Amino acid sequence: MRLGNIDIPRDTCQLVGNILGRVGDKWSVLIIVLLRERPMRYSELERQIETVSKKMLTRTLRNLERDGFVSRTVTPSIPPRVDYQLNDLGREVMVPLDELARWALSNKDRVVEARLRYDATQDEKE
Amino acid sequence: MRLGNIDIPRDTCQLVGNILGRVGDKWSVLIIVLLRERPMRYSELERQIETVSKKMLTRTLRNLERDGFVSRTVTPSIPPRVDYQLNDLGREVMVPLDELARWALSNKDRVVEARLRYDATQDEKE
Repeated sequence: MRLGNIDIPRDTCQLVGNILGRVGDKWSVLIIVLLRERPMRYSELERQIETVSKKMLTRTLRNLERDGFVSRTVTPSIPPRVDYQLNDLGREVMVPLDELARWALSNKDRVVEARLRYDATQDEKE
Repeated sequence: MRLGNIDIPRDTCQLVGNILGRVGDKWSVLIIVLLRERPMRYSELERQIETVSKKMLTRTLRNLERDGFVSRTVTPSIPPRVDYQLNDLGREVMVPLDELARWALSNKDRVVEARLRYDATQDEKE
């Protein structure tokens, strides 16, 4: 399999696909973008990303922590305080992620139009 | 919410996150990368991506078609022949997607190490 001019063995490709799937995930992107501003508490992230469920937020944060993009600091106060911040890896992935996000931002109308067209043809079939 | 120097309204951000989640999806990336070489039949894609289930391949192709990245051509032979190829949008998204994939390829060992470290701390807790 090839990416640009690079030949990639299949198992590497699966891993790269897996990493892409992680950072490209809707909630992960939003979390990384938010944490770039400053470290945030769990409750702040939850408030900022309105539409995310606790289950998905917890799962996404755990995956980002496991992959080394984000670190989690627990302050043993009462109640305990949990802060999340970007690691080096998280700050570095922002560069290509930004490019992709800019592309998505510039081309979102084309995607929305394509969806409307597609859905219209599906309606015709019914 | 901000991406680089661009301020983004919340609803746009959700849409961009949604588009990113789509193209950043593991199977979508693999399909887009494969189709960049040449148009392919369903069965070829299935053979190339070994580990994908029919259900996931069908669903991913349908989403890529709906979003305008891929087009599907049915040749009414017996049995019918179904070809998939990249549209303009799919070729254009390859540029930033390539950057992200290159990043993932260069940094995959750091992610794998982070995962091993994380999993080791989880084992300790048990």
